[in-house]
Amino acid sequence: MLRNDPLEQWDRDHFIHPSTHLAQFARGDMPNRIVTGGKGVYIEDREGNRLLDGFAGLYCVNIGYGRQEVAEAIARQARELSYYHAYVGHGTEASVTLARMVVERAPENMCRVYFGLGGSDANETNIKLVWYYNNVLGRPEKKKIISRRRGYHGSGLMTGSLTGLGLFHKLFDLPLDRILHTDAPYYFRRPDPAMGEEEFSDHCAAELEALIEREGADTIAAFIGEPVLGTGGIVPPPAGYWEKIQAVLRKHDILLIADEVVTGFGRLGTMFGSVHYGMEPDIITIAKGLTSAYAPLSGSIISDRVWKVLERGGDEFGAIGHGWTYSAHPIGAAAAVANLKVIDDLGLVENAGKVGRYLNDRMAEALSGHPNVGEVRGEGMLCAVELVEDRASRSFFDPGKTVAAKAVGAMLKRGVIARAMPEGDIIGFAPPLCLTEDEADTIVRATKEAVEEVCKAV
Amino acid sequence: MLRNDPLEQWDRDHFIHPSTHLAQFARGDMPNRIVTGGKGVYIEDREGNRLLDGFAGLYCVNIGYGRQEVAEAIARQARELSYYHAYVGHGTEASVTLARMVVERAPENMCRVYFGLGGSDANETNIKLVWYYNNVLGRPEKKKIISRRRGYHGSGLMTGSLTGLGLFHKLFDLPLDRILHTDAPYYFRRPDPAMGEEEFSDHCAAELEALIEREGADTIAAFIGEPVLGTGGIVPPPAGYWEKIQAVLRKHDILLIADEVVTGFGRLGTMFGSVHYGMEPDIITIAKGLTSAYAPLSGSIISDRVWKVLERGGDEFGAIGHGWTYSAHPIGAAAAVANLKVIDDLGLVENAGKVGRYLNDRMAEALSGHPNVGEVRGEGMLCAVELVEDRASRSFFDPGKTVAAKAVGAMLKRGVIARAMPEGDIIGFAPPLCLTEDEADTIVRATKEAVEEVCKAV
Repeated sequence: MLRNDPLEQWDRDHFIHPSTHLAQFARGDMPNRIVTGGKGVYIEDREGNRLLDGFAGLYCVNIGYGRQEVAEAIARQARELSYYHAYVGHGTEASVTLARMVVERAPENMCRVYFGLGGSDANETNIKLVWYYNNVLGRPEKKKIISRRRGYHGSGLMTGSLTGLGLFHKLFDLPLDRILHTDAPYYFRRPDPAMGEEEFSDHCAAELEALIEREGADTIAAFIGEPVLGTGGIVPPPAGYWEKIQAVLRKHDILLIADEVVTGFGRLGTMFGSVHYGMEPDIITIAKGLTSAYAPLSGSIISDRVWKVLERGGDEFGAIGHGWTYSAHPIGAAAAVANLKVIDDLGLVENAGKVGRYLNDRMAEALSGHPNVGEVRGEGMLCAVELVEDRASRSFFDPGKTVAAKAVGAMLKRGVIARAMPEGDIIGFAPPLCLTEDEADTIVRATKEAVEEVCKAV
Repeated sequence: MLRNDPLEQWDRDHFIHPSTHLAQFARGDMPNRIVTGGKGVYIEDREGNRLLDGFAGLYCVNIGYGRQEVAEAIARQARELSYYHAYVGHGTEASVTLARMVVERAPENMCRVYFGLGGSDANETNIKLVWYYNNVLGRPEKKKIISRRRGYHGSGLMTGSLTGLGLFHKLFDLPLDRILHTDAPYYFRRPDPAMGEEEFSDHCAAELEALIEREGADTIAAFIGEPVLGTGGIVPPPAGYWEKIQAVLRKHDILLIADEVVTGFGRLGTMFGSVHYGMEPDIITIAKGLTSAYAPLSGSIISDRVWKVLERGGDEFGAIGHGWTYSAHPIGAAAAVANLKVIDDLGLVENAGKVGRYLNDRMAEALSGHPNVGEVRGEGMLCAVELVEDRASRSFFDPGKTVAAKAVGAMLKRGVIARAMPEGDIIGFAPPLCLTEDEADTIVRATKEAVEEVCKAV
């Protein structure tokens, strides 16, 4: 399409896109897409395409696109006061109100929230708070953090170290010191096919405890995990997993950080994934669903137990040396307040549970029988279809064949966005929580056709 | 004041403020301030106070408060499309346009920009890019980064390590590995009072080179510095400093990262501080002035030289494993496009140079004669008054007396916000770039009265 503006050229010449093949993009060897609008679960681009976004951006536009209540809240805040900082006791009506709203929605033992910008910086804050906590308690050696292989906790240097995916480590010299990884609770990829779910959970807990004992419990500060593995493959935990893991953590006095960037504020059909799985975290990471991405905002919700130590730290050492210029940014806070109201008003947590179940059931009906579908799994408004070369032997495709990426490409031609997860041939779904059953049917239909088309060709 | 809402209580009970004495705040032993609006260089709070903000938030509200052009740009973007991600070649009209506008304004050899959220995460990106760069070039050992004592580059784990201030290190186990610090270019605190400026710059360059030789140049990837030291004390470099430093870096094939979070987009009276001081950086960090803080956005501007290697990395290793969900967030991008237009339309870069000079001259006239004023210094719309116990011997106050903090408190009673910098008794000023001469006079008057009042009492 010919256009009378140079946007395409500027994009190729000046814009470094995340997670992109930089050379191919600059040369024009891969497409760009300039998104111009959206409504509900649909986005529109400059070429006039209308696409059903089955991944809600990056699992973040939970209320769907184009919600004018949130847009107007942002507009009002921008007109009144776009910015003032939150340092040394400063705040805005929006940020203080939001602190209250977050704590009201959080599990019972949580009391306070520190606001950041995105999930990565919130986990950065969490590591700092955990180290500070053990320094105040006089345990300078208790500092290592255990994460899981296939966990996703950010793309920074320490947060990318927490992440347990090779793509985010290679060429960046990660993981850095003090970060350890234990087994992913990935039942489909269990070492012994004969293992039951509870047995596999016992295995994961035993592996964790062995790691703790090898390193020394007095060197381990915290364990971080997503209630459901996200970018690592959209993998709900096997039965009994969180109960068994928490027993080990309690025994060794290790804090639990629940990374709820994906699951917080309704995605599993409950306000928090921690509640869904009976987790009792000391810190909860929040981002995406907090604002439905209408403006950047993240947070670290702190338990009474951790707070008491932070407070003691203040009295012993003075003001805490931590802060971002844009902590609790008024635009993000106003967006979040309006977003949480929309979630309540439209009953989106309940809808995520109900339509999420429908999506998962229909997907399983439509695809489980296909010889290249190893597993259809999900929880709430999260769903994944894992492709295999051979189902009986659970053997995987050669990654070079990029089967899932091709399937996602074939879905895009059918007007539906899904995501090829970075490790393994896994098609991921995380639609807006406002998805209807009809829209779920559209996603399932496109997936079925794409998988059939692509698997026939490999 | 009695109010019929519980905002004050929520603030004390639920909100963790950055850089705050957490225990005192929670107990109500220190004031809070809920800011409700602003116009030009003034903010207003819920108690009806109107204050002249001599620090532009945290040196970030460069165009001043309440600029409706930017508010309306944010509102329009929110209504049309609050969010779509920038991964794998996606963008929005605002983010692509902004990439072009940033590169147009940057020094000549800069070609591309990666957008983040705040200065800390931009420096996180920079470290990742520098490590990636040397991995692509087959120099896996060339990874350490040299920063300066009193530098400020963020509050994360690695970026807080780059920062060279004790407050940001203690209780957080920083700095981490691979980060080294060399001398601050702080002429007022030079080791030998007899040294001239050029001589002191030679000394700094020699110290840097000695460090490089001790560590081995093949282990040093980059040097990072703010054109003018910011949070470390608002200290312009001594004559010849950047020229001599760059000669050392070039000799040892070490990249230069200019952290222009404070100086970018006009604060020194030039679009970039790099141009002001003849720096030729390989990477420039931008944040604050990019949007005047109306919405969170930061960036890493990349030189042709670095870009060529990133491109080669793409062809050799595929897509880059780096990205934030909110990279190039449309609301931030729309705010930045409108903000850069306001800067141009109102001639704010020129005004920063002109009124900044006026502010610095008047401040020096009013305060240089005071026996407890060691130095009045500044550049463009940055100014600092450093207090000393005795001027002749350059002896400093006992930090426990918190003299600068008291002076800033005395200014606040006079309706003017300044900042007590964290190390030393330094009163810092970084007003909006739209400051008028009358407003500069108001700042100077308040400073003079406050310094006289406070120094009489210590």
